[in-house]
Amino acid sequence: MKSIRLLASGAAVATALTLSGCAGDLVVSDVGSYHVGGRQVTLTGLPTQEIIFSPGAPPLKVDPNGDFEVEQMYVHYTKLAQPKGKVPLLLWHGGGLAGVTWETKPDGKPGWEMYFLKAGWDTYVSDAVERGRASWARFPQIFTTEPMFRTKKEGWELFRIGTAYATDPKQRVANAGTQFPTEAFDQFIKQGIPRWVSNDGVTQKAYDAYVQKACPCVVVVHSQGGNFGIQAALNNPDKVKALVLVEPSGTPDPTKTDISALKNIPMLWVWGDYINTLPFWTGIFGKQEQFRAEVNKLGGKTTVIKLPDAGIKGNSHMMMMDRNSDQIAGLVQSWLVSQGLTK
Amino acid sequence: MKSIRLLASGAAVATALTLSGCAGDLVVSDVGSYHVGGRQVTLTGLPTQEIIFSPGAPPLKVDPNGDFEVEQMYVHYTKLAQPKGKVPLLLWHGGGLAGVTWETKPDGKPGWEMYFLKAGWDTYVSDAVERGRASWARFPQIFTTEPMFRTKKEGWELFRIGTAYATDPKQRVANAGTQFPTEAFDQFIKQGIPRWVSNDGVTQKAYDAYVQKACPCVVVVHSQGGNFGIQAALNNPDKVKALVLVEPSGTPDPTKTDISALKNIPMLWVWGDYINTLPFWTGIFGKQEQFRAEVNKLGGKTTVIKLPDAGIKGNSHMMMMDRNSDQIAGLVQSWLVSQGLTK
Repeated sequence: MKSIRLLASGAAVATALTLSGCAGDLVVSDVGSYHVGGRQVTLTGLPTQEIIFSPGAPPLKVDPNGDFEVEQMYVHYTKLAQPKGKVPLLLWHGGGLAGVTWETKPDGKPGWEMYFLKAGWDTYVSDAVERGRASWARFPQIFTTEPMFRTKKEGWELFRIGTAYATDPKQRVANAGTQFPTEAFDQFIKQGIPRWVSNDGVTQKAYDAYVQKACPCVVVVHSQGGNFGIQAALNNPDKVKALVLVEPSGTPDPTKTDISALKNIPMLWVWGDYINTLPFWTGIFGKQEQFRAEVNKLGGKTTVIKLPDAGIKGNSHMMMMDRNSDQIAGLVQSWLVSQGLTK
Repeated sequence: MKSIRLLASGAAVATALTLSGCAGDLVVSDVGSYHVGGRQVTLTGLPTQEIIFSPGAPPLKVDPNGDFEVEQMYVHYTKLAQPKGKVPLLLWHGGGLAGVTWETKPDGKPGWEMYFLKAGWDTYVSDAVERGRASWARFPQIFTTEPMFRTKKEGWELFRIGTAYATDPKQRVANAGTQFPTEAFDQFIKQGIPRWVSNDGVTQKAYDAYVQKACPCVVVVHSQGGNFGIQAALNNPDKVKALVLVEPSGTPDPTKTDISALKNIPMLWVWGDYINTLPFWTGIFGKQEQFRAEVNKLGGKTTVIKLPDAGIKGNSHMMMMDRNSDQIAGLVQSWLVSQGLTK
């Protein structure tokens, strides 16, 4: 385990790396996107639907049977003319969210995508299978369960923004000293996307195809993305040059999976504040630390930053949207530099 | 009606306008995104769901009731350090699709977003309500109907790529001389997003909020976006400085709507090839030409380009993905220049 001390100067390092154009501008060689992974399925035998296309109009018969493309994912990239990162930086979102997590913050301030672009990284921001521009498929015929919709209450409380949600914003109780811009909470919730609990296998498959296509790379994951990112590194150990795990919620089971390939991949865990206030999070944190210990036993190069221990207080689960998101990105940037991943 | 002759040199004009950085690079001041529009809804009285989160695990009870944010839309922007467009260019997708329409083409070549960035426009690429990163809401409780999923057959035939779809790509019959890269058809279909037929009202509301926030602007619409774009111009006539209508599929009803505000907004219609091969398209084209005549009667400044009449053959409904997409973008760019919308 590395000390977190070397990261104390992260903000300064990041500032020095900020410019790749003139006066804060970016010199960009390409912006674009693609879908990757997925397969064709054919639906047959479904009854014809009657759909009313316009209010008052008679229903039209629609045949829902046929061929479809499903289980692909979506990737948006911004490539710099002269990147300083040796490889691109891939940003993977968490559960019930899409790549928007990494873009402009809900309070309108620049997010981690812009931070890392300014630090000189080509950035890739993706939507996993079933989310956002990746699209989703008919259920229960293709996706086998019902979708789930996160309530605002769950977003407020589970993401450690506050202890008690209320419909009226004035009645909501935020965590003392929170860094989350609570006035932008409703705006944050607009980023939410329905999720399925039955798609982990096809999601991993698409992520693996993505890594095969876009990497070598650094993978930065958040929350639910943790398990996918670690598994993708195991499945493609020559392709993933570092893993940054922002409050990852899961890992492959080290008693059932050979995780020895991780010993060659630098790994950084980052944790926010208030972890001890919810058993859900103390449980996740404990399991992640056990997993990290397993990686270390195998000779792995892991680092963990518990932000409060580094004197940085008040961070929610959505730390890339918190007021001090640049400060945290600076710690990540400093660690990436320390791993020799920049030119 | 303006002659299409002035547009013949479009490609050359566009080339001259290509550079805003050095040697093909873009000098970008900001990339980012936001959600706009929408409202909070509260669901009550729904039964608790039993969800199996992991294979083999017992079902967990999930309460689907609570507060949600719904009916917002998503906007991604790329701002240039020194734009040549006097206002930003907003790109609005068609039915069953998302903003990806405008990004990199399914064959991996640059799309219209990159074309117009290189021509010096700040570009805004959005996902309408219910699509992509805009997210979608529980049905039938919030969205009142069932979603619809476009078959590959419909994509092939309705979008005038070919006359007969088959599951086996080798068996598909393309239109003679098609400009669509048929080898990338499956890749194109991966961009498809389920749609609802009951969301026009809330979609228009979000588009209007978007125009209020992002404009003055030029609005470029495709297909289903046509009706939303024209209505948004009527609702915000001081904000929309020009409308580019790429095969729009609908309009407000001029017998029920005061469309006189359109007389001050330059409007360009663009139509591809094979229109006469499908009654669906001859019907739409005829209605659009009637609408255009109404605008002209009121003193409107409208232009129409039927690509085959201009000697440009083989274009599908997805002309921004066709092999000659740059040529068509060049015609649009030339028209925008002719309307005094560039510096």
